[in-house]
Formats: sequence, structure tokens, C-alpha cells
Amino acid sequence: MYVSIIGGDVGSCSDEDCAKAEELGEKLAENHHILVCGGRGGVMRAACKGAKKANGTTIGILPSADREEANDYVDIPIVTDLGMLRNSLVVLNGDVVVAIDGSYGTLSEICMAKKFGKKIFGLDTWDVDAVVPFEDMDELVDELEKVPL
Amino acid sequence: MYVSIIGGDVGSCSDEDCAKAEELGEKLAENHHILVCGGRGGVMRAACKGAKKANGTTIGILPSADREEANDYVDIPIVTDLGMLRNSLVVLNGDVVVAIDGSYGTLSEICMAKKFGKKIFGLDTWDVDAVVPFEDMDELVDELEKVPL
Amino acid sequence: MYVSIIGGDVGSCSDEDCAKAEELGEKLAENHHILVCGGRGGVMRAACKGAKKANGTTIGILPSADREEANDYVDIPIVTDLGMLRNSLVVLNGDVVVAIDGSYGTLSEICMAKKFGKKIFGLDTWDVDAVVPFEDMDELVDELEKVPL
Amino acid sequence: MYVSIIGGDVGSCSDEDCAKAEELGEKLAENHHILVCGGRGGVMRAACKGAKKANGTTIGILPSADREEANDYVDIPIVTDLGMLRNSLVVLNGDVVVAIDGSYGTLSEICMAKKFGKKIFGLDTWDVDAVVPFEDMDELVDELEKVPL
Repeated sequence: MYVSIIGGDVGSCSDEDCAKAEELGEKLAENHHILVCGGRGGVMRAACKGAKKANGTTIGILPSADREEANDYVDIPIVTDLGMLRNSLVVLNGDVVVAIDGSYGTLSEICMAKKFGKKIFGLDTWDVDAVVPFEDMDELVDELEKVPL
Repeated sequence: MYVSIIGGDVGSCSDEDCAKAEELGEKLAENHHILVCGGRGGVMRAACKGAKKANGTTIGILPSADREEANDYVDIPIVTDLGMLRNSLVVLNGDVVVAIDGSYGTLSEICMAKKFGKKIFGLDTWDVDAVVPFEDMDELVDELEKVPL
Repeated sequence: MYVSIIGGDVGSCSDEDCAKAEELGEKLAENHHILVCGGRGGVMRAACKGAKKANGTTIGILPSADREEANDYVDIPIVTDLGMLRNSLVVLNGDVVVAIDGSYGTLSEICMAKKFGKKIFGLDTWDVDAVVPFEDMDELVDELEKVPL
Repeated sequence: MYVSIIGGDVGSCSDEDCAKAEELGEKLAENHHILVCGGRGGVMRAACKGAKKANGTTIGILPSADREEANDYVDIPIVTDLGMLRNSLVVLNGDVVVAIDGSYGTLSEICMAKKFGKKIFGLDTWDVDAVVPFEDMDELVDELEKVPL
């Protein structure tokens, strides 16, 4: 399964939310899922870092045309030169989307994911009815496994 | 000034909100502003209809490649074949954005407008801090006139 | 009818080709067609200038997010922030496409127009079989009138 | 190095050109390059097949939103829902672009690659000056190795 993790970029993400993203990345990799994200900092970097601890595969879909923009834990950087419109590709490439924290960029991704008909799980993120909120990481990971492909 | 009006499509927009959109479209045209919208039904159609009552100019930026998708009150239909990504163009072409009602498509537009640094006014729409909410139409129109270009 | 005129930007377009673009813009406006172009200099500016001599309507679909990028003869500037990808919108919005002169940007537009199934006429432009070449302006304009909508 | 291979889709690609694409894919993988392509049939499928014979990594950037559109030899399918505009991403993700055979879709990619400032090599493809043509595969592969990153 491809899982898109979306959320706050570097500077806007708390240590606590980054820790959650790292834990989630690791658990997804342990369950052999492929991680898709926006390839940059904050939640994206933490999730990739976690995934690499468990030898997972990480895809980073970048806003710019410069592969060097990817964080150090991205295996497959995809450059787009689409700016914010690359957000659409980030969620489109997930079979499920998980939002952690995040500001308006993340909210735009939630909206797009909803429009694409994706299941969206949330941890400490926007309170909108498109997102199924979780408090507990293990519960979220359990529910993820039940999403039909 | 170019003003983007965003909001619920046909079927999701209440009669009351459509009436507000029509009134706003008319007032904007009276003030010689150009109306930009997504070119389809609901709030978009009502706003265009209002603008044409006052001889305004209406631009409809359509998701499909088919100009016939535009409502009857669009003067300048722009086809994009970009689907939901055309939302970005709708808000980018406004100097100010006004949201009326609306679901996740509208919320994605609010997010994009925020990212583009646009001023966003709201009538009976999403309660997020990127949007300045108004209850009174005249007050909204007055504030619009004060937005610096 | 909407007619897209594509071709060399300022600096890459000869005086002779710009004169042709201006003449074509004027003739299209006389025949009540709406001119669509990329909104910038060279062939685009000349065509818009010609159209305005005959009181035509000109639409300029710009690569940037800045309306000021439009040449002085564009009535309806559409900003996109899509860079080169806006080329797709330029040809998509024409019922017919006319290429005058032009380099690789123009050739990409010819390819896209071909993919969209558009009729493409050419004056002193790329020699590829997607383009119907003309030497004589009046003949081109006559043929344009025969394109079924 | 990331190498984008572009060219005719299934049905438009000759057996001879497909054989060249397969040979090139294999040689690139032997040289530890990552293959980027449009993920579909014809030249794209043949190049991926060749790369997998030498255990290379293959990325397929697809026009649709459906991962199943990818050919059997794509390791990392990226869905875009961008239609023809995904062509831009295919060439943007290559440090070098190689065109084999191909029609107007391929020519649009050549134009975009040129605009992005990419080096473009060709085998039996469009005769335009943006493309450095090769007759001999070994010579092309040798030149590829000399492209500075």
C-alpha cells in the first residue's frame, strides 16, 4: 500500500508532532507500506526518517525543479516545478492519506484528497469532517491496515 | 479590480446563498470590478447573473476542455482541462477573493488563496482564520473597496 | 470563433513576422473572432495590437502570476503561475490555432494543439505535418472561416 | 544519474525501435543509472524491461490517476491525473533525456526538455536541432557518461 503523509513543514511542526510522524513512518515501513510525501522538512522529513529506520521506501514529490530540495531520507525524489500544485500529486499517490499537524498547505491537501475520494486519517491536525481523527498511534495503524485497496 | 467569487456548485448551494452571490455580483459590477469565478453553477452562476444585471464583465475558468460547460452569464470562458487544479487559477486571478458557502472545493480555493497571499472575505462559509467573515453585504462591499492594489 | 495565435516572443520574432501577426490580428477582429495568445511580446503583442485596431477582443494567458506581464493590447489577462505549462491553455482555448514563426515554445504548442485535435495553420513556422502551411495571408484567413465549429 | 527515455507508445513504435529502447534500458542499468519514463507501452515498456534485466530502478510517471496503467516493468509508478501535461514531469526528472522514435507527444517532450535546458540525445527520432542524433548505441551510451551533473 502507498501511504501519503502530509503535515507541517520545517519551522511550523512541533517536536511532538515530528516525533509522531517519525513513529508512524517507522510503523508503516515495518508493515511494508511505501511512504509518499512532499519530500521537504518537518513532518515530511520525520516520517521519511522513521521509514528508513525500518528499511522502508520513501518517495518525495517536490514543489521545485531541484532534486536537492529533498530531505536526506527520501529515496525517490520526484521534481515537479509545479509549486503548490504538487500537493495534488502527493495525495493522489497515496491509497490512504495521514495528516499530522499542518497549516493551509496541509489543509489544501486534505481538500484534494477528499475530492479524490481518499480515506484521510488525522493526528493533531485540522478538525474538518473529511478527516477521521485519532489520538492513539497504534489504533491509527490498525485502522490503516483495514483500508481496502 | 478583479474579484474572484468562490463557493458551492449547483446542488450544494442554498437559495439564500445564491441570492447573496447574485447581489454581490451586481454590486461588484456597479463598482466596475471584473468578476472571476469557476464558470459553473450555484454560487458561480448566481454571481455572474448578478454582474450581468449591471453590465459587468464575467470570466469563468472552467475545469474541463469544453467551453459549453460555462453558465449562461459567463462572458469570457477559459477552458483548462486541469480538473480541480483549475481552482488555483480561479483565486490567482482575483485581487481579492470572496467565499460564499461552499464545500471542500471551496476550502481548497481558500487555502490556495491564502498561500498566494490574497485577502479573503467570507459570507456564510468555512470558519477558518484565513477568511475574514462578514454578516452584512454592504459592509463586505465597503471593505472590498479599501483593499489596496 | 476563438483563434489562438502562437509564435516567437519579443527578441526572437522578425519585423516581417510581427507585421504578419499584426495583419492577421486585425483581420480576425474584422471577422469578429476573439484572439487568444500567450499575452507577452513579439508575435503575441503584434497580433493583439492588430486586433485592437479593429476593436477586437484579446485574451492573454500568461505564464506568471503577474498581470502586469501582459502586453498593452491584452484586454483580458489571465495569470496562471504555470510557467511553460500555460502553453497548453493557450492552444486549448482556440477553436483554431495559427502559428507564426516561433521557436521551441511554439513547437511545444503545436504538439499540444495536435494532441488536442485542433486544426493548426502556419505562416513561416515549423515544418511539421501537424501544421498546414500558408504563404498568403488572405488564403489563410479564407480557410479559417471554413473551419467547422 | 537519472535518465529519461521518451518515445513512441505501444502501437506506434516499431519492433526495431523497441529493441533499441530495451538495449538502452539495460545498458543504463548496468551503469547504475535510474530510468525515468512515462510508464506506459512501446518505447517506455521496452526501456523498463531492459533496465530490469540488469536490476535497474525504473520510475514511470503516468498521465492518469490509476497506478495500474503502468507497464509490468515499472518499479515506482507515479500517478498524476495531468494527462499530457505529465510529459513535463517525465523530462524534468531526467538529468539527460534520450528520445527514441516517437510522435507529437515525444516532440512536445523534446521541446519541454529544451526549455528546461536538458541535454537531449536521439535515436531514430525527430530531426530538430535540440536533439543530438546518434546512429550507434554504444556511442550514445559513451556520450551519456560524459554529461556533467
